[in-house]
Amino acid sequence: MQATASAHRLHLFSPFTPAAFTPRGSAARRRNAAAPATVRMALREDGPSLAVVGVTGAVGQEFLRVLSDRDFPYRSLRLLASRRSAGRRIEFEGRGYVVEELQEESFDGVDVALFSAGGSVSREMGPAAVERGTVVVDNSSAFRMDPGVPLVIPEVNPDAMAHIRLAGRAKGALIANPNCSTIICLMAATPLHRHAKVVRMVVSTYQAASGAGAAAMEELEKQTREVLDGKQPTCEIFKQQYAFNLFSHNAPVLSNGYNEEEMKLVKETRKIWNDMDVKVTATCIRVPVMRAHAESVNLQFEKPLDEETARQILKGAAGVIVLDDRASNHFPTPLEVSNKDHVAVGRIRQDLSQEGNLGLDVFVCGDQIRKGAALNAVQIAEMLL
Amino acid sequence: MQATASAHRLHLFSPFTPAAFTPRGSAARRRNAAAPATVRMALREDGPSLAVVGVTGAVGQEFLRVLSDRDFPYRSLRLLASRRSAGRRIEFEGRGYVVEELQEESFDGVDVALFSAGGSVSREMGPAAVERGTVVVDNSSAFRMDPGVPLVIPEVNPDAMAHIRLAGRAKGALIANPNCSTIICLMAATPLHRHAKVVRMVVSTYQAASGAGAAAMEELEKQTREVLDGKQPTCEIFKQQYAFNLFSHNAPVLSNGYNEEEMKLVKETRKIWNDMDVKVTATCIRVPVMRAHAESVNLQFEKPLDEETARQILKGAAGVIVLDDRASNHFPTPLEVSNKDHVAVGRIRQDLSQEGNLGLDVFVCGDQIRKGAALNAVQIAEMLL
Repeated sequence: MQATASAHRLHLFSPFTPAAFTPRGSAARRRNAAAPATVRMALREDGPSLAVVGVTGAVGQEFLRVLSDRDFPYRSLRLLASRRSAGRRIEFEGRGYVVEELQEESFDGVDVALFSAGGSVSREMGPAAVERGTVVVDNSSAFRMDPGVPLVIPEVNPDAMAHIRLAGRAKGALIANPNCSTIICLMAATPLHRHAKVVRMVVSTYQAASGAGAAAMEELEKQTREVLDGKQPTCEIFKQQYAFNLFSHNAPVLSNGYNEEEMKLVKETRKIWNDMDVKVTATCIRVPVMRAHAESVNLQFEKPLDEETARQILKGAAGVIVLDDRASNHFPTPLEVSNKDHVAVGRIRQDLSQEGNLGLDVFVCGDQIRKGAALNAVQIAEMLL
Repeated sequence: MQATASAHRLHLFSPFTPAAFTPRGSAARRRNAAAPATVRMALREDGPSLAVVGVTGAVGQEFLRVLSDRDFPYRSLRLLASRRSAGRRIEFEGRGYVVEELQEESFDGVDVALFSAGGSVSREMGPAAVERGTVVVDNSSAFRMDPGVPLVIPEVNPDAMAHIRLAGRAKGALIANPNCSTIICLMAATPLHRHAKVVRMVVSTYQAASGAGAAAMEELEKQTREVLDGKQPTCEIFKQQYAFNLFSHNAPVLSNGYNEEEMKLVKETRKIWNDMDVKVTATCIRVPVMRAHAESVNLQFEKPLDEETARQILKGAAGVIVLDDRASNHFPTPLEVSNKDHVAVGRIRQDLSQEGNLGLDVFVCGDQIRKGAALNAVQIAEMLL
């Protein structure tokens, strides 16, 4: 990764050099990098053979970083992308790899494939990989609502994929990674849901550029420079100014007035919680932030839940940290969770607009590329080992 | 104003040169400026004598712009500020004024004073002005919840100030301008409330830098340049990085876990609607946007209200425009309402999480300095004429 990281250092806001963008994250990153320095145990004969599909994208690159950070074991590694990116060289854990063009044959002998190359690539190549015995962890929306495909957040519903095993040479399987907004919201809401049953949830999101890919992050940076220089901003990825502005999420709007991003929160929550009755509404907004989402979540419970109990539940929840210091006004921010694995929760308070202890407001932040995408997918893959 | 505008043109993001910051607003601004070019009728003998308190601040400057834009009649004008700013020269409608130090005697002979110099100045000088016969329109929070002081949005509850007249030389009166978030929210919610009675409202805000004053806007600009240059951001107004980040509103957090900004939405809504039963919860967040707030508002009604009726009601509402084009994904943005008088509403849709037609989600944007502060205050003053 060293060579790749240096090569990318020129691009200030590149998703591949988060350190330059997040001064606090930067120190943490150096510590992370220093810890497992001496021996790399990840490349070993008893590991599965891995493939990363869409390796040149923002999430694809993060797949590699997370695999390395977590010492994910692998016997072999294939880096796959579209023809356009084929031939590029990528260094990973001290070895050089050449990006190969994605084809059905790419999956011959591959045990686990992490996909993040968009819905159409997943629809075309996912089933082909499964036919060849590969277990596909898919980050696109292609199969999320397919009743035969588990939709998994490891901390929330690991049982949904309990029947899936690495196949050897038999038929593989598909496992879907939920949408980033859903993952980040449910990391906080699920521990409370288990305790007091959420009956209704009103979510407003503050979504980062990264959800629209590396090019959107670059556009936000470019536009910001242009606006600061008094120039017209370049609008290519988004059709309107993003710098110092915000707008309703760019996903298509459906006939019910919700956009697709919002309906993912509505539908994926039901599937992940296996609760067709939970009521969810969402308003999804893009804000000029690079790589971590924030969400304002209003919860209505079936059973009473006071705020101190809620805080203790969240403090004990896997993958969650509580940042809720009222005296110093220290609560979660996107910057503070950038390049971090955990989802941060704060502003935990009894909802004044609901009777008794039947409502809470919380504010949640999580790294969109990491827990919202790559990390969650790698955690799913780890459960297969 | 011409000289003032040129002098400020150096500061790209100054609240005084919004045009440089808002490319779309820029053309509109030129049109606005061109229209009333020939004769200024605002300075005339039958107008009230005016004072502007806190004239060097962001809202103070906007008071002047709004007074001029609306040809507010005045017999004389006093520009008042702290000792620090006294002596500064300001051009207004072709005349030169010297900023005077604010003192109790400043209000001798003043019919109407527009205050925006913070709560402590209002608490000290507001009653002194009233004693001298001045009607004070106060933009601070000092008197908003005082039962004897009307809290007014002219489009919403003009009757609350119907008993107040320009006093001549008798005792004056106080009228409070609501908080910016409340004004912008209620401009959209009130027309619907009149039709179907809002019983509960869940608000999440996306608040601009301007609410924390001109210095906060400058800090956001400065920090953004620093972060783009790979430097540590200067944190003086806010204790944490604001550029490419967002955070829970900087107002102090109370023992119930809500911050003061959120409680303003809760309490001011009750007072303005004269409805002690309406349930409101709010989560207030600062986003890296310059001068217009956005709010995601979830509404629960007593009586059914379908989304098409709601859209028609909002289209007919004073001071509101509807931007709700689902096909082209064109909805309100802070940039689009910057330097505009109206509040824009969009994303109007039946709330999937509520039964029948008893719930709606809407997304609202309004210029924090203009309708959120200066314009609303000047409209209040106009009702005195």
